[in-house]
Amino acid sequence: MDVRMERDSMGEIAVDARRMWGAQTERSLHHFKIGTEKMPRELITAFAYLKKAAALVNGGLGKLDAKKAEAIAAAADEVIAGKWQEEFPLSVWQTGSGTQSNMNANEVIARRAAQLLQERGQEADNSVSAAQENGHSNVHPNDDVNRSQSSNDTFPTAMHIAALIAVEDTVLPAIAQLRGTLAEKSKAFADIIKIGRTHLQDATPLTLGQEISGWVRMLEKGERNVKHSLEELRELAIGGTAVGTGLNAPPGFSEKVAAKISELTGKPFTSAPNKFQALTSHDEIVYVHGAFKALAADLMKIANDVRWLSSGPRCGIGEIRIPENEPGSSIMPGKVNPTQCEALTMVVCQVMGNDATIGFAASQGNFELNVFKPVIIHNFLQSARLLGDAMRSFEEHCARGIEPNREVIARLLNESLMLVTALNPHIGYENAASIAKAAHKEGLTLREAAIRSGLITAEKFDEVVRAEDMV
Amino acid sequence: MDVRMERDSMGEIAVDARRMWGAQTERSLHHFKIGTEKMPRELITAFAYLKKAAALVNGGLGKLDAKKAEAIAAAADEVIAGKWQEEFPLSVWQTGSGTQSNMNANEVIARRAAQLLQERGQEADNSVSAAQENGHSNVHPNDDVNRSQSSNDTFPTAMHIAALIAVEDTVLPAIAQLRGTLAEKSKAFADIIKIGRTHLQDATPLTLGQEISGWVRMLEKGERNVKHSLEELRELAIGGTAVGTGLNAPPGFSEKVAAKISELTGKPFTSAPNKFQALTSHDEIVYVHGAFKALAADLMKIANDVRWLSSGPRCGIGEIRIPENEPGSSIMPGKVNPTQCEALTMVVCQVMGNDATIGFAASQGNFELNVFKPVIIHNFLQSARLLGDAMRSFEEHCARGIEPNREVIARLLNESLMLVTALNPHIGYENAASIAKAAHKEGLTLREAAIRSGLITAEKFDEVVRAEDMV
Amino acid sequence: MDVRMERDSMGEIAVDARRMWGAQTERSLHHFKIGTEKMPRELITAFAYLKKAAALVNGGLGKLDAKKAEAIAAAADEVIAGKWQEEFPLSVWQTGSGTQSNMNANEVIARRAAQLLQERGQEADNSVSAAQENGHSNVHPNDDVNRSQSSNDTFPTAMHIAALIAVEDTVLPAIAQLRGTLAEKSKAFADIIKIGRTHLQDATPLTLGQEISGWVRMLEKGERNVKHSLEELRELAIGGTAVGTGLNAPPGFSEKVAAKISELTGKPFTSAPNKFQALTSHDEIVYVHGAFKALAADLMKIANDVRWLSSGPRCGIGEIRIPENEPGSSIMPGKVNPTQCEALTMVVCQVMGNDATIGFAASQGNFELNVFKPVIIHNFLQSARLLGDAMRSFEEHCARGIEPNREVIARLLNESLMLVTALNPHIGYENAASIAKAAHKEGLTLREAAIRSGLITAEKFDEVVRAEDMV
Amino acid sequence: MDVRMERDSMGEIAVDARRMWGAQTERSLHHFKIGTEKMPRELITAFAYLKKAAALVNGGLGKLDAKKAEAIAAAADEVIAGKWQEEFPLSVWQTGSGTQSNMNANEVIARRAAQLLQERGQEADNSVSAAQENGHSNVHPNDDVNRSQSSNDTFPTAMHIAALIAVEDTVLPAIAQLRGTLAEKSKAFADIIKIGRTHLQDATPLTLGQEISGWVRMLEKGERNVKHSLEELRELAIGGTAVGTGLNAPPGFSEKVAAKISELTGKPFTSAPNKFQALTSHDEIVYVHGAFKALAADLMKIANDVRWLSSGPRCGIGEIRIPENEPGSSIMPGKVNPTQCEALTMVVCQVMGNDATIGFAASQGNFELNVFKPVIIHNFLQSARLLGDAMRSFEEHCARGIEPNREVIARLLNESLMLVTALNPHIGYENAASIAKAAHKEGLTLREAAIRSGLITAEKFDEVVRAEDMV
Repeated sequence: MDVRMERDSMGEIAVDARRMWGAQTERSLHHFKIGTEKMPRELITAFAYLKKAAALVNGGLGKLDAKKAEAIAAAADEVIAGKWQEEFPLSVWQTGSGTQSNMNANEVIARRAAQLLQERGQEADNSVSAAQENGHSNVHPNDDVNRSQSSNDTFPTAMHIAALIAVEDTVLPAIAQLRGTLAEKSKAFADIIKIGRTHLQDATPLTLGQEISGWVRMLEKGERNVKHSLEELRELAIGGTAVGTGLNAPPGFSEKVAAKISELTGKPFTSAPNKFQALTSHDEIVYVHGAFKALAADLMKIANDVRWLSSGPRCGIGEIRIPENEPGSSIMPGKVNPTQCEALTMVVCQVMGNDATIGFAASQGNFELNVFKPVIIHNFLQSARLLGDAMRSFEEHCARGIEPNREVIARLLNESLMLVTALNPHIGYENAASIAKAAHKEGLTLREAAIRSGLITAEKFDEVVRAEDMV
Repeated sequence: MDVRMERDSMGEIAVDARRMWGAQTERSLHHFKIGTEKMPRELITAFAYLKKAAALVNGGLGKLDAKKAEAIAAAADEVIAGKWQEEFPLSVWQTGSGTQSNMNANEVIARRAAQLLQERGQEADNSVSAAQENGHSNVHPNDDVNRSQSSNDTFPTAMHIAALIAVEDTVLPAIAQLRGTLAEKSKAFADIIKIGRTHLQDATPLTLGQEISGWVRMLEKGERNVKHSLEELRELAIGGTAVGTGLNAPPGFSEKVAAKISELTGKPFTSAPNKFQALTSHDEIVYVHGAFKALAADLMKIANDVRWLSSGPRCGIGEIRIPENEPGSSIMPGKVNPTQCEALTMVVCQVMGNDATIGFAASQGNFELNVFKPVIIHNFLQSARLLGDAMRSFEEHCARGIEPNREVIARLLNESLMLVTALNPHIGYENAASIAKAAHKEGLTLREAAIRSGLITAEKFDEVVRAEDMV
Repeated sequence: MDVRMERDSMGEIAVDARRMWGAQTERSLHHFKIGTEKMPRELITAFAYLKKAAALVNGGLGKLDAKKAEAIAAAADEVIAGKWQEEFPLSVWQTGSGTQSNMNANEVIARRAAQLLQERGQEADNSVSAAQENGHSNVHPNDDVNRSQSSNDTFPTAMHIAALIAVEDTVLPAIAQLRGTLAEKSKAFADIIKIGRTHLQDATPLTLGQEISGWVRMLEKGERNVKHSLEELRELAIGGTAVGTGLNAPPGFSEKVAAKISELTGKPFTSAPNKFQALTSHDEIVYVHGAFKALAADLMKIANDVRWLSSGPRCGIGEIRIPENEPGSSIMPGKVNPTQCEALTMVVCQVMGNDATIGFAASQGNFELNVFKPVIIHNFLQSARLLGDAMRSFEEHCARGIEPNREVIARLLNESLMLVTALNPHIGYENAASIAKAAHKEGLTLREAAIRSGLITAEKFDEVVRAEDMV
Repeated sequence: MDVRMERDSMGEIAVDARRMWGAQTERSLHHFKIGTEKMPRELITAFAYLKKAAALVNGGLGKLDAKKAEAIAAAADEVIAGKWQEEFPLSVWQTGSGTQSNMNANEVIARRAAQLLQERGQEADNSVSAAQENGHSNVHPNDDVNRSQSSNDTFPTAMHIAALIAVEDTVLPAIAQLRGTLAEKSKAFADIIKIGRTHLQDATPLTLGQEISGWVRMLEKGERNVKHSLEELRELAIGGTAVGTGLNAPPGFSEKVAAKISELTGKPFTSAPNKFQALTSHDEIVYVHGAFKALAADLMKIANDVRWLSSGPRCGIGEIRIPENEPGSSIMPGKVNPTQCEALTMVVCQVMGNDATIGFAASQGNFELNVFKPVIIHNFLQSARLLGDAMRSFEEHCARGIEPNREVIARLLNESLMLVTALNPHIGYENAASIAKAAHKEGLTLREAAIRSGLITAEKFDEVVRAEDMV
């Protein structure tokens, strides 16, 4: 392997000559051979937005040579475009401030910016700088790309950018898509009267459309909660630098970078009004993930309802049919399983656990910094990805194909005893109860038992006990 | 023990003659000897508000004799006033719809209303009713007190009423109280410059006021998140009855009861737009508790900071002093411990666990009902109570008495090396690093090492490295 | 209120003259008005065992006057007998070492021991002691009852004693009781062939006895895991005193007290080999509670199976019947719900959350002490109580009464298509699949579809596809 | 893209001609575009062991042509060797039984086995079989590779194999390595007396060796608990087939395959005595992960102690030094952070969350199957990998390099007041307390305050208060 020597404040270290990263990334690779989880792609993109914004603002404020600023911005654009994915090899399980991933971004962008300057035959005006001597050609990871910044404010800034994009572009559209499909089903099945079930026991009737409308409403609420809570993510830590005081950042840097990021991403961000909180608390992430959890709880319920309603085909409930996507069993021929429900409910379990991880990690800040940032954002983005993907998959391969099994629905409704509830206002709860019990014990229909009881006439029964009036 | 025989749809059962409850409460006592947790007091109060509101609305709609309605309302008022606390003996660990606690409320209020009617010499106009024959005198738990209702809509309604009151009257004022005290401290200590710490390692300086301002901001955000999320609790399930269709409830009942509850409690409530969701999903509770968790994570951080900053007295950090409330040790004389921090952080652990319980339970609904309601509300109200009480206790017995230890703060600031960061813009990151390292290794002050390095003059150093310019 | 003045190292404080406690208990009441959870009864009992054992050992070692030792032992016996329950009023949410509850025990026992000495006309030989002057008559909470001890070793010791007793006397017998009942059911229903279900979809058959045998095996494993893991609880911290070094405890104290506690409780305990770990780690509690969680997961599954199998009565699965214990609905007459399953599954949710609380709290130790002890033991004992009580309740009021609904079982088995699996070895998986699908689509029985397919003869089909050969 | 047509019981589907998988793997890819998590490598290896064992046993029992069996075994060996990693592309988020990954293994191995037969010029004796017609050449994924098996028994079998290997080969060695290093440190620092700390407050002294011995003991216990609990993993579900009855598996298959897997892996396994439990409960995984959690709680405490003890360099505790591995800050030059502690504690947070996910998922089985298997094993193996890797990394890059800062340790010990505890037996707790308080208030040393109090002479003080006698 061809290597080049890179150096940082700890000395020299050899790096594969083909790689774009520098000394600090290399050290991290050596010291953190832990697990298989890499720093999330979405976070790298967010870092690139941030580095571009910071360079342009530094340039505008005269804190960075204009040609350098432009080259950094161009390099960052390439990162955003996914051109340098292989150059971000660091583990989630590194320093808890994410310093090494900040430096990874600084190093790759610095090197690429220097290449771009060279390609263009440009030379930045501090052509003989400390940076150059350190082998960084004329763009320095710390002094240029990281100018006016610290890992302590960049990493939480990138967290919010990545989280907001994931929520807005992945989670919310998936909720809307599933909600829309179910709303259509609710409307389409508005006239199908079926038995209700509470405690898994037969209850009074409702329509299939009504049943599904409850699911739709859950998704509406999940959508609303996620939307409300994500407002918290718009506040950015940038400008706080090392401990929140903003040392080494020029006046106005914070607000200008937030504005620039808004412009670049097309999503409004603001400067966090208190940077001390922004560096050491991650209540925003916890709060938004709490909305994820509320959504996940509802998704569990919806997916469970779908698989129970479609259970059978002959020995279950069987009131609906769902698409048959794959052979269900490697041993039982012809079996088809509610696999989309299963994937979705497994995702829910993961989101619940991620919620515990995030809450725990967010509580462990000390003094001016919380050093559990990578695990927090790793779990948050995983939840966002999984919820978004699983809802979309469920919508496409299952919800869209839900069809009622009208025959089964009608049969079960007719056999049910709980239509007795309609008698309460006429003969009282306790008399009604005795009729239902007699029917149950003697295997009668409700009508037979009611008439036999002498508490009500056949005519009155037929007038009062009408499923279509009970929904 | 003197007993009276009570009956319900399952037959007769003996009840202690001194008790106000009836057959179903008694059956629950027999069948659920589980644990020591009783249905929360706050929920009983909420049930009483609901039963009063329902009686008055039923009365107004001509669905209930006016004298009965009034007697039920009067009986409910006594429950609200705490007069019948001993009559609500049921366990949290009962039927998952809370039916038995709904019946407990129905039975006690029915009995008390009948007594009141009798005391007043009044007789309801259905003086010879099924109710009377069933030994319920002339107010019937189901047919009168529970009229137009089901456990399935009353219990979630009571959950929201109780939860909203707990959040608004317990949690939010406690946040405000603690936030206010810390805001004063932040202001009072605005000029005290101290060393910052990130990764537990010395960092650049900030003021003690700034450090505390981060805590204030956390509480502001916690307050805001809790306030936003609790809006979800205003939607009430009442009117949905058994499965969400509203069977047996008169038109307008839902909205009228919500309005009446608003009037009685002085807190705005509305009728949930979709009752199917309202019976089977508890995403509102999960979501609000998610805000609790975000708050809890911040409280953990604040309490930890307070105890670390006050650690010592001689072998810790010791930058602040907190009140000495109790002897700290049964063996080490003179020891004083940060006990309020400890109580608060233990509460945080409980809230984190409660969050897991609630999320899990909320996900387990099936079809038209979630039957994990008691465990959900038990945990939610416990969290509200604990957070409220612990923040108040912490404020009163700890935060209010925080005082800086100026001598220690000054000494540590002077010894620190991280003021070197101020040199970055002047001599570059790597040169600054070499100075800090030299000072660390040779036991020099930063100034000595800087001058010795030849990279900066004494004059320039004194001009640039000023803690007061770094905050 | 008549008061007496009590004093401790912080000065004087007024205590209700009728109460047995002293200054430190009183201070804790003032400073910790948090929540409704009191220090668990089981823990107080464990403290009394410990104080008795320590007094007797101190007496035997000549570290405590013999008459005092005896009086302390007698007072502790009264606490164990439950005579002084009202004298232990402290909140769980106090100092994290439980110092105040240790002092509560010291104070009550000291006062009671002094009374006993006085009643007996005895006088301890240090008749004029510092203790007396401090208003503690002649038995001092710290110098006598707490002799050779610290909160830091007594509290974790009491935790292990209480936890072990709860597990052995509450949890394990309840598992055994439920396991036994289910084993009988498994045997009784060994010949009832029913349809199996995987993914909620019809699968190949098994017997009801086999199905229940899986539950029995889960309980056997739960029992085994709980038994194995509880061995960890036998190690006691006593003798470590303040930081684990055993300062101020005489040689041999640790082992002698462990032996004495074993004798008093009838349960073997040993002295923890490393006291530093014993004060600052609660891995034992976490580990045993992990076994609780594994058990809880199985209980959830069992309770869910029971309620699903008994769902109906007409629109569910209905393969078994369970006891009807209470009216199920306040609105739907005649409805009976699986309420024992519901209580049990709610308990499972609580245990899952408690597990999170305990794990979190146990991770938060610093240096020589973990100061989350009360929240840990509170949650552990709640889980033990809830699991024990809920399993007993479920056994008594539900499992014991499980009966097969043979008619339903037979009908569903006959309708099923998954017996097709028996054809795999004869005609291959894919041919078998095509037969099942044809039957499903055309509403045929499996036999009809098989014969029609031409892939197998009627004779061969009847020979091969026999449910009784498939179980 | 060149494709070939593959078919299964649902019909034909095009597969990239270069890939080894078949129709069902391809369908899964289409239907489960969820997240980035692939079925864990360790599980694929476990499947290969299982498929090899099953083929050899089937061959031995005359259920599979000997040449086929051998070819399947050879193909499985290649999978174990990692040759076909790219051929296992399926997501964790698929069907909850893992059927599709079982089929992925069946398809890849069948195809490769057929190639091997062809390469060898061999032809299996069922040369004209249904399999061949289906385009599977002459080794069929279901009829041959999956013979006598079902996903429902193979997946949980593979889970146990993979879990056991991960625990024994990754987690346990890492515990032992860290325990060993810390045991050496404990011994090496046995004579260094330092101040103890409880509640973060100065307490009585101990040696640094003693402090570290507590950590060693925690690891010993973690090791013991993990070892005990993993015994549960030795029971294999194989032989239960679809629902636990073993339909279509020949007699003795279960035991023979378990024995063969033991032989192949070098790790003892047995056949689960009850296959109904084995398919539908994952209490073993929950229980072992509970031991992980107990270990994780201790690791959190150890890592926190290390970073607090090394905090500073000038404004923290600073009693130990740890290796400086990387530049700590992108803005503060010369800063070095406890990054290994941070990675380890982030891993702990993940393990805590994974524990919640696993417990939840394991509780959700219904009837004859738990369909949350992939999420359970994904989380379990992630925890095993992270714990193993992070402990190793922490040992290598941090623990190994821990060195005492003797100067700081001595200074803090001398300044402490808590040595006053040694006076208790001589002058009583309350007198000792007054001395400590006087010293604290007046800034005296303990000795000065003691003598000034008149309660003890200088000679006596010097005789009694000796830190070296207090450890």
